[in-house]
Amino acid sequence: MNQEEQWLLPDGVEEVLPERARAIEQLRRRALDLYRSWGYELVFPPLIEFLESLLNGAGRDLERDTFKITDQLSGRLMGVRADMTPQVARIDAHGLRRNGPTRLCYCSTALRAKPAQAGGTRLPYQLGVELFGHAGADSDLEVVLLLLDTLALAGAGDRVVLDLGHVGIFRAVLGACDLSAADQSTLEDIYLRKARTELDRFLAERALPANATRALAALPFLDGDGAVFPQARELLADFPAATEALAELERLVAVLEAGGARVHLDLGELRGYHYHTGCVFAAYLPGDSEPLAKGGRYDHIGEVFGRARPATGFSADLKKLASLTPAPRGAGILARGGLDDPDFRERVAQLRAQGERVLLALDGADNDPAELGCDRELVVADGGWTLQPISS
Amino acid sequence: MNQEEQWLLPDGVEEVLPERARAIEQLRRRALDLYRSWGYELVFPPLIEFLESLLNGAGRDLERDTFKITDQLSGRLMGVRADMTPQVARIDAHGLRRNGPTRLCYCSTALRAKPAQAGGTRLPYQLGVELFGHAGADSDLEVVLLLLDTLALAGAGDRVVLDLGHVGIFRAVLGACDLSAADQSTLEDIYLRKARTELDRFLAERALPANATRALAALPFLDGDGAVFPQARELLADFPAATEALAELERLVAVLEAGGARVHLDLGELRGYHYHTGCVFAAYLPGDSEPLAKGGRYDHIGEVFGRARPATGFSADLKKLASLTPAPRGAGILARGGLDDPDFRERVAQLRAQGERVLLALDGADNDPAELGCDRELVVADGGWTLQPISS
Repeated sequence: MNQEEQWLLPDGVEEVLPERARAIEQLRRRALDLYRSWGYELVFPPLIEFLESLLNGAGRDLERDTFKITDQLSGRLMGVRADMTPQVARIDAHGLRRNGPTRLCYCSTALRAKPAQAGGTRLPYQLGVELFGHAGADSDLEVVLLLLDTLALAGAGDRVVLDLGHVGIFRAVLGACDLSAADQSTLEDIYLRKARTELDRFLAERALPANATRALAALPFLDGDGAVFPQARELLADFPAATEALAELERLVAVLEAGGARVHLDLGELRGYHYHTGCVFAAYLPGDSEPLAKGGRYDHIGEVFGRARPATGFSADLKKLASLTPAPRGAGILARGGLDDPDFRERVAQLRAQGERVLLALDGADNDPAELGCDRELVVADGGWTLQPISS
Repeated sequence: MNQEEQWLLPDGVEEVLPERARAIEQLRRRALDLYRSWGYELVFPPLIEFLESLLNGAGRDLERDTFKITDQLSGRLMGVRADMTPQVARIDAHGLRRNGPTRLCYCSTALRAKPAQAGGTRLPYQLGVELFGHAGADSDLEVVLLLLDTLALAGAGDRVVLDLGHVGIFRAVLGACDLSAADQSTLEDIYLRKARTELDRFLAERALPANATRALAALPFLDGDGAVFPQARELLADFPAATEALAELERLVAVLEAGGARVHLDLGELRGYHYHTGCVFAAYLPGDSEPLAKGGRYDHIGEVFGRARPATGFSADLKKLASLTPAPRGAGILARGGLDDPDFRERVAQLRAQGERVLLALDGADNDPAELGCDRELVVADGGWTLQPISS
């Protein structure tokens, strides 16, 4: 390997240089401050865990995305987390063991063996919240509102479209049908692709109850704004759980639209079907196929840790969010003095305490103000330390 | 594996729960703000890299500490970083390619295959700074002063003892001796253990120049305060590079002690000898064998990336630093209203914007104010939303 190759990074692996790092750090702080003001407590789940713990329950779909390493201390297999959600669920179930609603948030790097899509990152800086211990629509609404506030912080607020669905609708209709596991799996696949011709053929070949056939044929195409609700209510009238799910969605849409959000309903949405149990949502910028953030309800989380708790939450890649706004540009002072001089050190300390960036001009070095981002300098003039502008 | 075992974490792997996470996050922000005020720019090196890049040059000693994984995209070996210093050097040499002094800082998780000492962590939250592009004493002094300011932020300022050495002293004396590589290695090992009897025997068995024998016999035991300087100057008078190193240390000690720092000199210090090239330092709390932070000069960094740059810096485990002070305890407001009510939402948003933690009381849940950390509640009284204390 020659020198040119030595600094190449693997595909989907990026280093973050100062300008972008500053934008990310600023958004990180504003998001975590927002979450704190809503009562979400920060946790740092560990970067690695035993594989069984990391992939269990909510994490089972993550197996192919997870890098495995052998623990030299125990000889057991460990994994580097590819998603923090199952870890946070473990912290709720075992680390905290509270009875009531528990609000947690996190912001750390995860590692995926393969990018979620071609050309994507394998190192998402995962920012998210989870609300454990409450099963009603109140907590779904809280989490969706917090997601919208997060996107507003990132400067994407008014452009975002929120895709909203509820896996309980499909599940309720499916519950009235006697379909084999293989057939259920085929149907899910057809739903994810919204393949109308295949769907019609599939339903024609099975003798399902008439009301279920009618609902299953229509659901994937019931999307758009609140205008879909009357038709959906009529279509799903025979399925009480689906009707309940619809009522929850109607309430969410009413509150969200009153707040000015742009909502797009998709009543046949099955994203994360095996994992989610209720309301699911994803925020998109127009024309972007990868969501900015996504989340939903997953009420069986924690079961594998011996303590099932209802849960809802969302996550986003902070690096992606922080790329939506231009990086800030700073000013600075180049201080031309010696550290042996207490007066000089005192003056520099004062300026720094006032929030200034003060860089020491190092003896014998090329202290180029432009390269160092300095627009002023601290120099001796008239017997004292004085700030003066640097002409460029 | 039963349920009880599923949430056990590997040895040296910790999860950080809310109270500690908040202390860590607060110190992280204060440290990064401090570094910014000194002109250090934040970077996020990637969690993984190709192994050659990660272990090259400065990183060669890290091989046994680094977890290896195979990249499924390229088939090549990658490593999870065990130390961020070589990564930051690569960013200086190739990502930025500036000519003058470049100040960088970082704060992210690293992963060690084995803990640095028994019972220690394998997941240090590595906080550090690096100053590239300047070879003189000015930059060593800047970095040591910044380290002391960091420790003061962590609440350890007045208890810390700073161990100070300079590997150039030993190197200068060794340069005057014609020792085989095996003998040099034996001698280094004796120095690290400060084994006086072995040292005397080793020197007696070799026919080294008399001035070198005298210096090598005395160096490991030249430690203490500034009182060692006169003896050291006399002992090292024949070795110009050692005399220069001594002069640099004297200047450092003068500035540091004038600022009230407690400095402990060790002129035979060889910590990181193969890696460091000049002044080395480590900050200890009395009675603690593991340093709070350590650093030094390593001037050949970047050479393997085709661009050698002088460098000095330090790093610390932020988790350890944040454990020195008690975690902060917050207050909060339990808001008892419905999200469908715009007046209620407006009042909650106002309180949050004022910096209050406001938690929504979720319908049907056990919203225990004590568990949620709330000391006040927002309720309807006299026809409006009113804050009132919660009696415990």
